[in-house]
Amino acid sequence: MRAAQYTGNGSIDTVEIAEAAPGPGEVRIRVAYTGICGTDLHILHGNMDHRVTVPQSIGHEMSGTVDAVGDGVDGVTPGQAVTVMPLVWCGDCPACRAGNSHICQNLDFVGIETPGALQELWNVPASVVIPIPDGVSLAHAALVEPLAVAAHDVRRARLVAGETALVIGGGPIGQLIALVAARTGARVIVAEPNADRRALAAANGAHVVDPISENLGDIVQELTAGAGADVVFEVAGIPATALDATAHAKVRGRLVMVAIHPKPVLIDLQRVFWRELEILGARVYEREDFERAIDLIAADEIPADTLITDIVPLEQTLQAFESLGNAQAMKVLVDVRAHG
Amino acid sequence: MRAAQYTGNGSIDTVEIAEAAPGPGEVRIRVAYTGICGTDLHILHGNMDHRVTVPQSIGHEMSGTVDAVGDGVDGVTPGQAVTVMPLVWCGDCPACRAGNSHICQNLDFVGIETPGALQELWNVPASVVIPIPDGVSLAHAALVEPLAVAAHDVRRARLVAGETALVIGGGPIGQLIALVAARTGARVIVAEPNADRRALAAANGAHVVDPISENLGDIVQELTAGAGADVVFEVAGIPATALDATAHAKVRGRLVMVAIHPKPVLIDLQRVFWRELEILGARVYEREDFERAIDLIAADEIPADTLITDIVPLEQTLQAFESLGNAQAMKVLVDVRAHG
Repeated sequence: MRAAQYTGNGSIDTVEIAEAAPGPGEVRIRVAYTGICGTDLHILHGNMDHRVTVPQSIGHEMSGTVDAVGDGVDGVTPGQAVTVMPLVWCGDCPACRAGNSHICQNLDFVGIETPGALQELWNVPASVVIPIPDGVSLAHAALVEPLAVAAHDVRRARLVAGETALVIGGGPIGQLIALVAARTGARVIVAEPNADRRALAAANGAHVVDPISENLGDIVQELTAGAGADVVFEVAGIPATALDATAHAKVRGRLVMVAIHPKPVLIDLQRVFWRELEILGARVYEREDFERAIDLIAADEIPADTLITDIVPLEQTLQAFESLGNAQAMKVLVDVRAHG
Repeated sequence: MRAAQYTGNGSIDTVEIAEAAPGPGEVRIRVAYTGICGTDLHILHGNMDHRVTVPQSIGHEMSGTVDAVGDGVDGVTPGQAVTVMPLVWCGDCPACRAGNSHICQNLDFVGIETPGALQELWNVPASVVIPIPDGVSLAHAALVEPLAVAAHDVRRARLVAGETALVIGGGPIGQLIALVAARTGARVIVAEPNADRRALAAANGAHVVDPISENLGDIVQELTAGAGADVVFEVAGIPATALDATAHAKVRGRLVMVAIHPKPVLIDLQRVFWRELEILGARVYEREDFERAIDLIAADEIPADTLITDIVPLEQTLQAFESLGNAQAMKVLVDVRAHG
């Protein structure tokens, strides 16, 4: 069977490897689509070599069908459409014992610490397999994982209907957060300098702001009658936007720091103090976030076709990674079944 | 009557001024004790001249007795022991309308925006006057306001019995937070480089750590069996301690940024993300924090006599301010009635 493998040095090769039968407790998935995300790009750039053994298939946003099951697995049937919640926790660390197994202190992230979905047949622990309802296209199902990230961010923010959410950054995760926030009943403002990304957010119902040519602070104040946003999502990942984010939140507003900042960044703690703000970290998702994402996709409440900007065959995986630098690209899927 | 007035340029003069009758809706308090806090020191150093009109008496931690009441005031009687919750809110801004009047967007802080308690007779709006129960010494009652700050910080942290609280910084507010946390039933760790301050915290039941000669991270890990602290209070106000604070919190731990950082400081957002931490701003107090503080003082659950390290007459107010730089000084009270 074919597999696209990260080999280190910024390179991905498509190779022929032997099929393996699913081990006890495992499910073998025939992969349909694998999406590429920012974390995968970090891996390709060598930033996560301490966590990845090479050569290895990466990829954790996916859809497929059950191909075979190992000993002791029940509840899934060959042919069933599935996705994967790619977290394997220890069950025994303080975080797990406190009910936060999704951020287990010894978490294995499937597709980073263990092989990922950029291969035709993929063996995973049965615990990570999540059924996709009948009638959902497999291409759309590949969006469940990133949508679950957005659902988790919105839930972590305790956003409720009628509130105003400011999303700073209109990349793929920013767009998904804006969509989930809107489906939650919030008014959504998206700040994004790229015109194409603004147009996408506007088409999905957000009030859009170009923070370069417009005064974001004034606009947020005006739209909220001087209160500020109930929730601010910092998704740009730029130190300057993290510093600025606190300026737009209302008294007792919540800020979710979604973007990853590898180095410490300056935060306006004076503003945090003055307005009793709350800064929340949010990482991956819990099972209910996956359920929410599947429900939204199944109910066609997410414009999945608009968000999927390209689908390429397995042999073009490296080019797909490279295309992510393009601001027009939102979600690029690899069709693992296709040859090219 | 006598008044100690801030006159700008780092100076305080004791002067004779005319008594004024309480206006409609006002209460005239015969001041007994006025405590000096870090904010007062900031005023003396000229950092808050944009908020203070000179010459003006400052001071907002106090105790006294009702001397007279203006028209339309009921519920207080001359002779009654009182303190003041020195907040006057507008009632009409978004923060007030959302129930957060203690951090009103147009807040007047009595003793900063309007004259404070370093004068023998002090007219204040009746709304800020809070009765002190019979039997509480007026010196102890002067600690209610700073203790309410600590009670607010602890409540904001949602600290509960059985949790572990790390207090970084053993100055006056750090000591009070450690005490309130202990009275809440938490285990308390205080990190403080000064030996006298450590001794005070230890005498009040805290596990103390010298962060210079000991490894705070290792100790917190050991005491919490690898989990980290449930709550971290950053009370040192040093950029390095704010940066370090996130390292000691458990997965989903809460950090309260108590100290004021006038300039943005570096925060480890990667750690905030990885452990889904929560950073909370906390400012002043609400009525229930004052009630909690009064209850603790009245029940003699706070070693007030140990915390009050000096009492000086009104004429020595400036020297009292200067003595605050001394690490042995905790609470210094001005006895406004005394001559010297």
